[in-house]
Amino acid sequence: MISEMMKGLAGKNSAIRAMFEEGNRLAAIYGRENVYDFSLGNPNFPAPEAVKEVAIDILNNEDTLYLHGYMSNAGYPDVRKAIADSLNERFETKFTENNIIMTVGAAGGLNVILKTVLNPGDEVLTFAPYFVEYGNYVLNYGGVIKAVAPDTATFQPNLTAFEEMINPNTKAVIINSPNNPTGVVYSHETLTKIGEIMSAKEKEYGHEIYLISDEPYRELAYDGVDVPYVTKYYNDAFVAYSWSKSLSLPGERIGYVVIPSEMADFTITFEAASIANRVLGFVNAPSLQQRIVARCLNENTDLSGYDDNRKTLYEGLTAHGFECVFPQGAFYLWMKTPVSDKEFSEAAKEFNILVVPGTSFACPGYVRIAYCVAKETIVNSMAGFGKLAEKYGLK
Amino acid sequence: MISEMMKGLAGKNSAIRAMFEEGNRLAAIYGRENVYDFSLGNPNFPAPEAVKEVAIDILNNEDTLYLHGYMSNAGYPDVRKAIADSLNERFETKFTENNIIMTVGAAGGLNVILKTVLNPGDEVLTFAPYFVEYGNYVLNYGGVIKAVAPDTATFQPNLTAFEEMINPNTKAVIINSPNNPTGVVYSHETLTKIGEIMSAKEKEYGHEIYLISDEPYRELAYDGVDVPYVTKYYNDAFVAYSWSKSLSLPGERIGYVVIPSEMADFTITFEAASIANRVLGFVNAPSLQQRIVARCLNENTDLSGYDDNRKTLYEGLTAHGFECVFPQGAFYLWMKTPVSDKEFSEAAKEFNILVVPGTSFACPGYVRIAYCVAKETIVNSMAGFGKLAEKYGLK
Repeated sequence: MISEMMKGLAGKNSAIRAMFEEGNRLAAIYGRENVYDFSLGNPNFPAPEAVKEVAIDILNNEDTLYLHGYMSNAGYPDVRKAIADSLNERFETKFTENNIIMTVGAAGGLNVILKTVLNPGDEVLTFAPYFVEYGNYVLNYGGVIKAVAPDTATFQPNLTAFEEMINPNTKAVIINSPNNPTGVVYSHETLTKIGEIMSAKEKEYGHEIYLISDEPYRELAYDGVDVPYVTKYYNDAFVAYSWSKSLSLPGERIGYVVIPSEMADFTITFEAASIANRVLGFVNAPSLQQRIVARCLNENTDLSGYDDNRKTLYEGLTAHGFECVFPQGAFYLWMKTPVSDKEFSEAAKEFNILVVPGTSFACPGYVRIAYCVAKETIVNSMAGFGKLAEKYGLK
Repeated sequence: MISEMMKGLAGKNSAIRAMFEEGNRLAAIYGRENVYDFSLGNPNFPAPEAVKEVAIDILNNEDTLYLHGYMSNAGYPDVRKAIADSLNERFETKFTENNIIMTVGAAGGLNVILKTVLNPGDEVLTFAPYFVEYGNYVLNYGGVIKAVAPDTATFQPNLTAFEEMINPNTKAVIINSPNNPTGVVYSHETLTKIGEIMSAKEKEYGHEIYLISDEPYRELAYDGVDVPYVTKYYNDAFVAYSWSKSLSLPGERIGYVVIPSEMADFTITFEAASIANRVLGFVNAPSLQQRIVARCLNENTDLSGYDDNRKTLYEGLTAHGFECVFPQGAFYLWMKTPVSDKEFSEAAKEFNILVVPGTSFACPGYVRIAYCVAKETIVNSMAGFGKLAEKYGLK
């Protein structure tokens, strides 16, 4: 028989699969175009043309043994240098290739970081609502995740509750901005305060408390909003980045981790993280993709489509009387439900609308609506949302 | 401070790095062409031309969103079907896409398997000499690895010792054929006996004991030697495969796991392994590489170069009086040392020869000589090996 942990996970997985199957069932009856599936965070705008051109150029011109071969577990030095230079230019940081480890996406990066720092029994704090997979990642290394309750007025992190929850067992704190599922971007003030609280607690407890910033949505920010760089606010901060969303390459599993030189025990931490990349079975980030992204650092998926969807969805829902957080980034809209989130998402299925209950993000009373869909899906879903608003007396 | 486990690993890693740095130090003094570095298992023959042609064709013709997008955590169904069909044709098996999970190389596959089956405290048996990384993989899930002592006459697994070591805590057994570091291929007789022993022990203890076959060297077998397919010998058998060696794509991290339908609790085991792929942070195997390998299933790196190296090395060393295992597969030669393996490998450095002590494979008294190098490296190293033979009175 399989392991106890995986038995538990295989059981829980059925909820996600149930939604997937419900989508297929509805599509079979009503046609795919009449099902409004807002459940998946899968980019729907293609990778920039440059990705294809660069890939073909590399395949035609780079030495095959080098291109497909092993390199340092941390990745190709020239790729890491290009990324460091680009970050320095954008954020006035001072990274070199010795601060960058190429990883199998941000999910791989988070696992590398957690493997590097956690001992069994360590606590990791995060802020509700949060991507539930963090709990599984922490559990992989025997850690325990605890969620700080949300500030439902702004969905910026609740820092009063945070300060109260940090304790001597807290080894790390995971943040995510632009945020999945709320679309909120952490402000300069929020990061300043997080840095101050954590520095004080490090001093009080006499050991490091690592800040881990999960940033797959960094480039998806609208209206010119600033997405501050966390290593400038706190020394013991890791960044996990991914090109899954910014270049629409989620299947390629390509990202990196930043470990700043200011981090405590920097040298052994960087070495340990490189070894963790190997020991966890990643070995290194996929080599061709490393070489592609290094030449596409100034490329981005066109945001105008997401931005248009964002406004259309927000305006449509608020016109119907729904209370929504106006998203500053990512491609999710976070909406308050007039009844329990489970009851609402069940009722929405009657109008062929699929959304994810906030309970799945440790934050009941809300739903996540992913707007990385065709615009027509949003426009055509509005009749259904209107009927839901009527049903619950919102208008 | 980082985790206790990673502190330990970062310390141990220095031995490998020391050898790497020794190679660089010698190259700086004597020139790279005068250093005989047999320490790395990195393919030195390039990927077949078809890999490049197929990659460019896919980039030009497949839908970008599909090509770089998320798919099922187990991988693209059509890719998995193509692999199942190919295995069935070659080995008379009866797999479908529902028996195949695409993984981040064999290292990723082994971690997925171990995550799926191990509870903390479970024992995993393997056969010395063995790839030491297995110990780290097992430790990732709280397991304990134990090595069966070698049969130094043949370096086929010592099945008498194996039968004695299996106990009620044994949850899995890892085998590797063609073998790193010995080059031995497990025979039909060996696999038959392993299957019989494990079936009897499963019955005796009343629970599954999983056989895990690590097969990155499957296609590297010489003189037409048969490499039997393990699922035909035992029902509770996983296979972890990789194209790192067969297509010279080690940096791309592409492989798969086979879970046969005959396995106990097949349905939940397959689902759990797919989820493990996600939860460990792999999410899925790199998407473009999945689509490439599916169209290169009949391609192989040209073996004639490795074969030529194998014979040249074996003949050279035995002519000098060294006692060697004649390799049937992989690209390693396993040689008995006239003094301790550490003393011998230190002495070899004086002749600019770098080999890996058998102690690194839990088998002192031998060294591993990787012959995935230029033929001149082998030819030119023979003078040094000759002097070592004289030094230790072999001729």
